[in-house]
Amino acid sequence: MPEADTLPRTSASETETSAPWWQRDDLRYEEGRLTLGDCDLGALAAKVGTPAYVIRAPRVVQKLGLLHGAFDRAGLDHRIYYAIKANRTPQLLTHLAAQRLCGADVCSPEEALHAMSCGFREEDISFTGTSLSPADIDVLARLSDVRVNLDSLSALRRLGRACPGREVGLRINPDVGIGYAGNDMLQYSGTEATKFGIYLDRLGEAIEIAREHGLRIVRIHFHAGCGYLDRELDQLARVLAESRKFADQLPDLEEVNIGGGLGVPHRAGDKALDLDRWAGVIADAYTDRGVKMAVEPGDFLVKDSGVLLASVTYIERRKAVEFLGLDAGFNLAMEPAFYDLPCEPVPAVPRNAGTGRYTLVGNVNEALDKWAEGFEMPTPEEGDTIVLINAGGYASSMRSDHCLRGDIRDILLLD
Amino acid sequence: MPEADTLPRTSASETETSAPWWQRDDLRYEEGRLTLGDCDLGALAAKVGTPAYVIRAPRVVQKLGLLHGAFDRAGLDHRIYYAIKANRTPQLLTHLAAQRLCGADVCSPEEALHAMSCGFREEDISFTGTSLSPADIDVLARLSDVRVNLDSLSALRRLGRACPGREVGLRINPDVGIGYAGNDMLQYSGTEATKFGIYLDRLGEAIEIAREHGLRIVRIHFHAGCGYLDRELDQLARVLAESRKFADQLPDLEEVNIGGGLGVPHRAGDKALDLDRWAGVIADAYTDRGVKMAVEPGDFLVKDSGVLLASVTYIERRKAVEFLGLDAGFNLAMEPAFYDLPCEPVPAVPRNAGTGRYTLVGNVNEALDKWAEGFEMPTPEEGDTIVLINAGGYASSMRSDHCLRGDIRDILLLD
Repeated sequence: MPEADTLPRTSASETETSAPWWQRDDLRYEEGRLTLGDCDLGALAAKVGTPAYVIRAPRVVQKLGLLHGAFDRAGLDHRIYYAIKANRTPQLLTHLAAQRLCGADVCSPEEALHAMSCGFREEDISFTGTSLSPADIDVLARLSDVRVNLDSLSALRRLGRACPGREVGLRINPDVGIGYAGNDMLQYSGTEATKFGIYLDRLGEAIEIAREHGLRIVRIHFHAGCGYLDRELDQLARVLAESRKFADQLPDLEEVNIGGGLGVPHRAGDKALDLDRWAGVIADAYTDRGVKMAVEPGDFLVKDSGVLLASVTYIERRKAVEFLGLDAGFNLAMEPAFYDLPCEPVPAVPRNAGTGRYTLVGNVNEALDKWAEGFEMPTPEEGDTIVLINAGGYASSMRSDHCLRGDIRDILLLD
Repeated sequence: MPEADTLPRTSASETETSAPWWQRDDLRYEEGRLTLGDCDLGALAAKVGTPAYVIRAPRVVQKLGLLHGAFDRAGLDHRIYYAIKANRTPQLLTHLAAQRLCGADVCSPEEALHAMSCGFREEDISFTGTSLSPADIDVLARLSDVRVNLDSLSALRRLGRACPGREVGLRINPDVGIGYAGNDMLQYSGTEATKFGIYLDRLGEAIEIAREHGLRIVRIHFHAGCGYLDRELDQLARVLAESRKFADQLPDLEEVNIGGGLGVPHRAGDKALDLDRWAGVIADAYTDRGVKMAVEPGDFLVKDSGVLLASVTYIERRKAVEFLGLDAGFNLAMEPAFYDLPCEPVPAVPRNAGTGRYTLVGNVNEALDKWAEGFEMPTPEEGDTIVLINAGGYASSMRSDHCLRGDIRDILLLD
């Protein structure tokens, strides 16, 4: 596993003497200043202002390389589609389209058109949407080279009417999912019926509908869950095994798309995904079938490649709590407030003035607008830059303009 | 209480024979078609397309009248600022500015500028923001006639430096709040320190900072909680009583702003706020002080004045669940998914084909994109319009473009 040392290195414990858990070759302090690649984040904040999203393209490209490497070592013919819903910044998409290391996974017709507008070729776009309207079907019919996966019998029938004879994929629901303790929101398949995909009991009907319209079912697609790491790989193996029950009834199958969900560490103690083990799980399930394997990483590529720069607006005690205000609110990165996925605050240029415990809050008039509670960090001053890490995915793309606090720039770093 | 019959009429039980709990004079079925004011919502959907936000201005104006009436009957000199963060649609703001029945409550400099751009005069704008940056302070210094309330000693000091001698308000934290069973997200003050306001133990420092800069503290502001109804009025009384401990130390006080938080029924069994009882609670706490009372309703004015129109994209069984897909996702109205505040689905033109139990889902590729679960309603067909009620507040204004599913129009109805 020669690339292992370029993946995020996590330390099980975060003490004052050891390196912080998130530190890695391209995100670390150099002479007391936090750098992402060769960018001094404090200096960047001083130039472009805060709040600002920053994403480092070379890390995204490097992680694409790691995925290709793991697939190759496992002997798997494969294709990678970047899930642009994680971060659709045009700068990033254009750069990735030009690299030709991945296609684009899109989940709405507008995302498909956006990917095309950033340079992705139709045939490099994989569409897997849900609850498609007639207008959605019209766009998909026009985009005749986009690889469309349908997640309901209804959508299959409607696309069949609109473009008889087309090659299509089925989003299936293997009825087992990856479970996360206490986080039902990230559950995509499992014992309760979810809105995604066609269950095995209706596969026969899907095949019949395809036959009626001359559609060739050349792909299956499924998504097991979000943010999985090594500890969830046994569950992934179960999902893959179940998916074979579908695959083995589809003689035209050319591609098996295992969706996204590959995670990154969010907290001290989280261990990065072992890509060789991951690829091995996939190979075990599918090598004998001789199909192309596809994957749709989103967060895995971008989340820890990007940060959100903010400035300290005030530090002030309320009751027994030291509050530290930022000029960035939860509307700019919704996962900490709503999904229990933290963006850990890291000072860009820590001062040598001891440490304190702070509750970091944003500038939106909502009680849940909070980045961290009782978080120990070097004592900062007003105006200092705080870097919220792991903000490269589902931050910019999900942001809202709530309270008109959504004015922010996306900055692409090329090194 | 002559206006009582124009408030939402709620029925304690929702049976097939009685009227639905949300029915009222301006939202009901006429000859089998759901109307909002004099607008046939199904016909509107057919003309403008879905998804679409619709808000009925006359209802907002009417509710402003109800508030003024309740204040007047309680003998309270008062002022109403509409909390534009609930819905800042320019059409609505312009209409309200022209009515001169309310000012605008804003919580960011951009919101202040937006309110001005829609016709609100500076002196009719009340600003209460949080975690203010130096750039925010600069804008507030320029807007010299906007009524600014500061929520931290730091902000008070910085505004004092920028505009010595100005009249200011203090956002205080009375350290008691309105509690909601199981919904901590809506808690704004209470036993845990929150990020909002100056606690009593630091009021002396605030007065001293004001004195240093010649600031006159003419207002206090506080916010007890969100969405309160009659059952929470005893708690409001406690909040008001605590606020007197601040008010009584401020000799220049002219206005006491009790914030927003007035709720509307969200479910069968929720009883609308009794405005006369509400005004009585305020009068009991403050009549003897001889100050102007201010209030900042948001949801109370707009939430049940607006709806989200959507169309049925498919109806399909998965396992034992009947799924009903809509062309609108949770990104268009985040409160059902994240705040447990439902937008109940109502068919615009119910068919006479029996009823079914449906799980209503949206068109965003996230498992939590769900409007209702196992919800009994008249059996619809693909293409039918479903009206999601109570979408007039915190829907349009908080929407995101997640998955590029955020393309939607705001429609103002004037009758």
